[in-house]
Amino acid sequence: MFMHNKRLQYTVRVSEPNPKLATMMLEQFGGADGELAAAMRYFTQGLGEDDPGRKDMLMDIATEELSHLEVIGSIVAMLSKGVKAQLSEGQMEEAELCRQIGASSTSVKESILFGGGPALMDSGGVPWTAAYVDSRSEPTVDLRSNIAAEARAKIVYERLINITDDPGIKEALGFLMTREIAHQKSFEKALYAIEDNFPPGKLPGVERFASMYVNTSQGEGDMNGPWNTGELWDRVDDLTQVMPADGGDGIATVALDDADKAMATKLAARTMSNPSGDPLTGADLGAGPGAGRTTKGDKGGAPDIHSAPAMAEEAAPA
Amino acid sequence: MFMHNKRLQYTVRVSEPNPKLATMMLEQFGGADGELAAAMRYFTQGLGEDDPGRKDMLMDIATEELSHLEVIGSIVAMLSKGVKAQLSEGQMEEAELCRQIGASSTSVKESILFGGGPALMDSGGVPWTAAYVDSRSEPTVDLRSNIAAEARAKIVYERLINITDDPGIKEALGFLMTREIAHQKSFEKALYAIEDNFPPGKLPGVERFASMYVNTSQGEGDMNGPWNTGELWDRVDDLTQVMPADGGDGIATVALDDADKAMATKLAARTMSNPSGDPLTGADLGAGPGAGRTTKGDKGGAPDIHSAPAMAEEAAPA
Amino acid sequence: MFMHNKRLQYTVRVSEPNPKLATMMLEQFGGADGELAAAMRYFTQGLGEDDPGRKDMLMDIATEELSHLEVIGSIVAMLSKGVKAQLSEGQMEEAELCRQIGASSTSVKESILFGGGPALMDSGGVPWTAAYVDSRSEPTVDLRSNIAAEARAKIVYERLINITDDPGIKEALGFLMTREIAHQKSFEKALYAIEDNFPPGKLPGVERFASMYVNTSQGEGDMNGPWNTGELWDRVDDLTQVMPADGGDGIATVALDDADKAMATKLAARTMSNPSGDPLTGADLGAGPGAGRTTKGDKGGAPDIHSAPAMAEEAAPA
Amino acid sequence: MFMHNKRLQYTVRVSEPNPKLATMMLEQFGGADGELAAAMRYFTQGLGEDDPGRKDMLMDIATEELSHLEVIGSIVAMLSKGVKAQLSEGQMEEAELCRQIGASSTSVKESILFGGGPALMDSGGVPWTAAYVDSRSEPTVDLRSNIAAEARAKIVYERLINITDDPGIKEALGFLMTREIAHQKSFEKALYAIEDNFPPGKLPGVERFASMYVNTSQGEGDMNGPWNTGELWDRVDDLTQVMPADGGDGIATVALDDADKAMATKLAARTMSNPSGDPLTGADLGAGPGAGRTTKGDKGGAPDIHSAPAMAEEAAPA
Amino acid sequence: MFMHNKRLQYTVRVSEPNPKLATMMLEQFGGADGELAAAMRYFTQGLGEDDPGRKDMLMDIATEELSHLEVIGSIVAMLSKGVKAQLSEGQMEEAELCRQIGASSTSVKESILFGGGPALMDSGGVPWTAAYVDSRSEPTVDLRSNIAAEARAKIVYERLINITDDPGIKEALGFLMTREIAHQKSFEKALYAIEDNFPPGKLPGVERFASMYVNTSQGEGDMNGPWNTGELWDRVDDLTQVMPADGGDGIATVALDDADKAMATKLAARTMSNPSGDPLTGADLGAGPGAGRTTKGDKGGAPDIHSAPAMAEEAAPA
Amino acid sequence: MFMHNKRLQYTVRVSEPNPKLATMMLEQFGGADGELAAAMRYFTQGLGEDDPGRKDMLMDIATEELSHLEVIGSIVAMLSKGVKAQLSEGQMEEAELCRQIGASSTSVKESILFGGGPALMDSGGVPWTAAYVDSRSEPTVDLRSNIAAEARAKIVYERLINITDDPGIKEALGFLMTREIAHQKSFEKALYAIEDNFPPGKLPGVERFASMYVNTSQGEGDMNGPWNTGELWDRVDDLTQVMPADGGDGIATVALDDADKAMATKLAARTMSNPSGDPLTGADLGAGPGAGRTTKGDKGGAPDIHSAPAMAEEAAPA
Repeated sequence: MFMHNKRLQYTVRVSEPNPKLATMMLEQFGGADGELAAAMRYFTQGLGEDDPGRKDMLMDIATEELSHLEVIGSIVAMLSKGVKAQLSEGQMEEAELCRQIGASSTSVKESILFGGGPALMDSGGVPWTAAYVDSRSEPTVDLRSNIAAEARAKIVYERLINITDDPGIKEALGFLMTREIAHQKSFEKALYAIEDNFPPGKLPGVERFASMYVNTSQGEGDMNGPWNTGELWDRVDDLTQVMPADGGDGIATVALDDADKAMATKLAARTMSNPSGDPLTGADLGAGPGAGRTTKGDKGGAPDIHSAPAMAEEAAPA
Repeated sequence: MFMHNKRLQYTVRVSEPNPKLATMMLEQFGGADGELAAAMRYFTQGLGEDDPGRKDMLMDIATEELSHLEVIGSIVAMLSKGVKAQLSEGQMEEAELCRQIGASSTSVKESILFGGGPALMDSGGVPWTAAYVDSRSEPTVDLRSNIAAEARAKIVYERLINITDDPGIKEALGFLMTREIAHQKSFEKALYAIEDNFPPGKLPGVERFASMYVNTSQGEGDMNGPWNTGELWDRVDDLTQVMPADGGDGIATVALDDADKAMATKLAARTMSNPSGDPLTGADLGAGPGAGRTTKGDKGGAPDIHSAPAMAEEAAPA
Repeated sequence: MFMHNKRLQYTVRVSEPNPKLATMMLEQFGGADGELAAAMRYFTQGLGEDDPGRKDMLMDIATEELSHLEVIGSIVAMLSKGVKAQLSEGQMEEAELCRQIGASSTSVKESILFGGGPALMDSGGVPWTAAYVDSRSEPTVDLRSNIAAEARAKIVYERLINITDDPGIKEALGFLMTREIAHQKSFEKALYAIEDNFPPGKLPGVERFASMYVNTSQGEGDMNGPWNTGELWDRVDDLTQVMPADGGDGIATVALDDADKAMATKLAARTMSNPSGDPLTGADLGAGPGAGRTTKGDKGGAPDIHSAPAMAEEAAPA
Repeated sequence: MFMHNKRLQYTVRVSEPNPKLATMMLEQFGGADGELAAAMRYFTQGLGEDDPGRKDMLMDIATEELSHLEVIGSIVAMLSKGVKAQLSEGQMEEAELCRQIGASSTSVKESILFGGGPALMDSGGVPWTAAYVDSRSEPTVDLRSNIAAEARAKIVYERLINITDDPGIKEALGFLMTREIAHQKSFEKALYAIEDNFPPGKLPGVERFASMYVNTSQGEGDMNGPWNTGELWDRVDDLTQVMPADGGDGIATVALDDADKAMATKLAARTMSNPSGDPLTGADLGAGPGAGRTTKGDKGGAPDIHSAPAMAEEAAPA
Repeated sequence: MFMHNKRLQYTVRVSEPNPKLATMMLEQFGGADGELAAAMRYFTQGLGEDDPGRKDMLMDIATEELSHLEVIGSIVAMLSKGVKAQLSEGQMEEAELCRQIGASSTSVKESILFGGGPALMDSGGVPWTAAYVDSRSEPTVDLRSNIAAEARAKIVYERLINITDDPGIKEALGFLMTREIAHQKSFEKALYAIEDNFPPGKLPGVERFASMYVNTSQGEGDMNGPWNTGELWDRVDDLTQVMPADGGDGIATVALDDADKAMATKLAARTMSNPSGDPLTGADLGAGPGAGRTTKGDKGGAPDIHSAPAMAEEAAPA
Repeated sequence: MFMHNKRLQYTVRVSEPNPKLATMMLEQFGGADGELAAAMRYFTQGLGEDDPGRKDMLMDIATEELSHLEVIGSIVAMLSKGVKAQLSEGQMEEAELCRQIGASSTSVKESILFGGGPALMDSGGVPWTAAYVDSRSEPTVDLRSNIAAEARAKIVYERLINITDDPGIKEALGFLMTREIAHQKSFEKALYAIEDNFPPGKLPGVERFASMYVNTSQGEGDMNGPWNTGELWDRVDDLTQVMPADGGDGIATVALDDADKAMATKLAARTMSNPSGDPLTGADLGAGPGAGRTTKGDKGGAPDIHSAPAMAEEAAPA
């Protein structure tokens, strides 16, 4: 069961309202790596977890992330306070109000739709979705996802700090960013407290495919590194070796019964594409009067083409 | 630039059509941890990457994931082949066809909307969204996300293997699952080839908050572990110490100019909630004839309540 | 700041695992009217609220909804416990496991993707989205939205109770449903504690349009009721009176400057549709050999049409 | 069956094109509280409604909302007319055109993707989704949702009026806003024409939980009001009384059969987290050369930390 | 199986970084008509296609579209390169950095969340969704969808060319735009290589409804054209003829068994709306002290209405 | 302005309730090619269209599609009528009710959340989104999109007819399907009434790229057809010719100023990946006690691998 104390986990002191900065901060309120995503990630994992140590840790951190959601949301609320009152009481001149909230689409939506209250959308105006929560109910997987999520949240806070010059906001963001570092450390400890955690899950892989590195992107810029070279790796540079990687023909097949076969034949006959001939097409009809059919150059002899500055090939830079 | 060879990276041999199994396989075709998500994750990272070694690795693995998308999509196509032909040619008795595709909502959508062709949706019928791609343009972050993504993909393949008894599908899934293990190893090597990778990004944290563990979830079940106990951690059990964690009052404030202040006052007055009195409400009006107002028990004296088997409290199990 | 106690707000006693029932319960976990929607609705309102009484109430109820999210999520976790273990350890025969989780698409996704952990999606498998949260930062609006949201949540719990026969689940759902009634009552009181709350917001409407009822749907079934009849209403049955409702011509116009006018003329000329003539079309080309052009009946003389049992009009029921 | 007359329900006179203002207006075209949402809300309710009076009212208002969608869409089309022609005919200098449409992301999308035609997205560029439609097929619920929806639409129009200084647009918006007031009144009458409408639905609640108010958010700022105080309420300030609210232990349990129990045990053993010890982690490896392990301060002794102006704690405002 | 060569299909030469232009280009990277949509459309069709000619063509074009995705993504990456480095290394003054990325919401999201790496979202910041892919597994349908998709992609490139003045970008966009023209021609040829392709699919329509044109929108502006006039069409101007179009009563009915009938009667009784009387409503309660009930004018006599400049009707333009 | 008559455009006679069939029909109510998508596609085009003939046609067909939405929605309502009443009045035994609605996830959502009223979601339970509407404000593009959309809608109705054996539903679906054929014919006529409609839009392409066919997918199965062979085409089989297609180096470049260059260098140095060496990784740590590092075979010597029946390679079918 959750309880709430009216004091924030970190004091929020904002210098002055700024609706545009408010919408940038939304990234960590309702964005993909924001605090709701964090809270829900750990909370849903905690609910399904049976290991007592991990369950306790997940509920601890989930609860703290809710408190962080409150901190970042309070920053947004403070930054939006001026425009909220002006918009609500309608005393400011329309054009000025329009200019203030029109700094970005998100700011418009934040003001017109949400009235300046913190909304669970990201800095681009997209509503938060649980598609961001990638809990999978296997601790050797989820802890890796949590480590990555904390790393992502850390870097987003770092960027927000880099574009903010309000010292009170900078300080609060610094607190929140640091807590992500601390949480990442907890999840790292918890991952390695499971002694056999790689490969994740239970099934081992097929041995000869687990050390194969397929060099599918070739040309100037091909590089060696510990990720594809060394005793760990069987590197495949000749791609015909993996077309296919098994000993088969690389074709997809399914055994159909007679009824299905008959239907498939019928379908093939009905929709058969005639590879010979050169049918008249809708594009031929539409290529304009006198064109007859589209030709290689399309409209190519038409005088207006050569005067189209944007497209004439000779206008391109050498 | 991409090229394509018509042979698959792994031969696909499906024993018989099965539209319901097809839709389960969609999880790795158009699902959150599926092959399109993997390909797009590494491809977008590769496009933005300047480090030559990582760029090469990302394009290698992105390209291979596209080939995996082709393998899993071919499995779906083979499993759907019977119903596709029957649905298209309309020779099967309607009720039987309805029964075959009606095994799940996803199967209905796969058949009716997509006609049995592989669709980029997950096993629940939800279209693939780029919200699954969490590239952040910082290698110490992205490589951790990639490690986690490979771990997730691995476990989902493991589960699909666990529910499949078609040996050809099982074998192809085993190949795909193993490649995720190999990719995870590559990303691990690449992460640790960046010598100073923790904390991710450039800004260090605030020292005293980086080692603080806040025990926000308390009660029976509180546990110790390396994630919250030991020399690494300053553990906070008395939560009043972090209300707030700084030396402030835990309140959110913003400095408003006079115009904004005036508006805020006006807004407050207009929408003031009168805390005294007990206003008549819409619910009071709606509580039924003779009720006057809702009382503590709502409809409480009405005879039908006690006979409502579902809700009468005494009917609950002891 | 939030805190958590490991005991639930209501004890959850589930009789036996049931993955299909689990996914039905998801409606109130990650669905449109579920507990996350409720918690986030009140939490975001509370963050932006300045009236002390309403702010306190919103944080109280938001926090309780988080505890309800925990209760309903625990029900899902208990119902999924069997399949989670079987899927993870892979000891059950594949076909049997496939059958157990294959009862619905959502159940497949819950099992294969989420591994049996409670996921923030609805009973149809759609991820939760903040688009469900309709806070608008005006208390006379938001309180009405909250009243409606509680009413919706109440009826969804009622339906879940109607399809459940596990007494422990029924009892917990009864608790949750009743709390929605209580919350609705609180929001009703808070709405009417704002003495002048209708029309919501600040601007009055235009008098003569505020009492107009436009009878736009006519024919057999036209009815009178207090919503369109009586002294409150000026009812418009002759729709030409509101084409338009103002004294104008009912046309949309914009004043363009000369440059824009010139461009608009050019655009019109380029894309002009020739209303005379009867151009040959792509459909004409595609209507089959010998068809020349599509005629009124399309393919109408073709013998296969009359034998198509589904479509021949005479086959329709009398 | 629907019919259409080419005259609008309200004449639209726009002073001059303005693509940025156009995109603000989109909020009521393709936004959450916009006219499509309204039309579809009442239309879907009307289709499923059997009560003749309500069915008639719902179809009346749904049809009118479609006409409002036409009015607001016409405003958008007029405001976009200049940029549409310029973009289509490509006669304006590129940089100037880029500047005109680049006023907001939504304006870019409206121009580049939709070519200046009204698009069913909101002011933030998010496509309309039926997730906004909260019809639930229970009139005592749906009418409350409709009342709330009209209140929301009213306030959004009010805000658009507040930021518009084009008198023709202001007038048309005033008409649309007022009609929302009228519709709200109709829905109110229809709700209270159902004599027993609270609690909504059929099941009564559990008596003792229907009057309980749980004061979950405590601390300075705790308030009394008619929503939590008075004869209607049993207020719980000591939260241990509701941990849990029933007489149980507040624990979630499920009865597993032997097979499931065996599997659960196996799963627990495989993924057990070792709470003792202090494992070396990936973060330890990544904390940089010479670091050995992460320590409390992370990188704490590194000279560059103290020079990082953003984060050094002493740089925070007093 | 896919392979990759590190050279692009078209050389990308960008004159200077420009984050705002970068986000405009996203429309063809992660937008509805962008290259990922194209690639996935043809790829999913190719996987399910059995006709050898069409399958080959679809895989050819799908693969080329992936190369186009690489070209447009490289343009985005180049345009974002400056801000990416500044944001990552944090050396620029905060306000200046904030200004640079704050040109639009999408630019903020591209910078703060994605760090300047190309993201699969559109110019409005909305993540790519597979809902854009409209493959239906019937070639006479899919080829028409492909033709339309290429036409859409062509026009979006044309608009991007119109707003770009960087010659290197203009040239690359010209290449990409032209390839859409070429692809449209291929799909046209493939459609008409199926000799009988209209109506699409297998079932013919009902003859008398296939040539009916219903003039549902009437009034000034009613027009004739080959789409509704001529020997092909039976035009219906008197709409009562199609209410309904069959010989029935235009009513929806279902046969219910006795149990369902009984329940439906019970439901009707419980939720019956009383059409007589004029119930007191919540809006009446909320219309303010002294109002008693809402009257026609709502608040109409209140002095503050007349002073509300925005809404008083007399303030509207003549 | 829209008007409504209470009679449907086609009489709906449903034989008996069937919630599972109801949810299949949702595909054309709230699905991608359903009637709302059609209505909104033509309505938004009509609003922005200035050509009088096309504007009239678009509003005619948009309005008719709304009437079709009403017909298909009425079918859904009739099919859901039994379960709606049973669910609402709660008289059926719980398990039986659970079984009836549990036939698919969509049916569960349709019943539990929407109470049996027609909901704007598809047969897979996904809410309708305006992302389905691909109007682009250029008639030579939009008319092609409309042609394709009608073709898609036709085939989906055909499939629904194929799985339905209720004669009344089959007849109504036949009407709706046929109207899509008629609408396609209208849009074809309108497209070719624009005399010069190909390429769509205004800009011609670059001549030499408009006739190039790039054979990117090679291997057994390469085919010739009118789409890639003949006088229209310059076919490229040697892909090195288009790496790149221009005369450049196929590399993406941007000119950076000195400040940006300095930052880019700094970023590169900070995140440099060391290509030599073989760093110890997190996966090495996690590969289990005694493993030291992961080796080629991962866990390869562990006894449990060989006994894992699913994955041991020798267990794969020959």
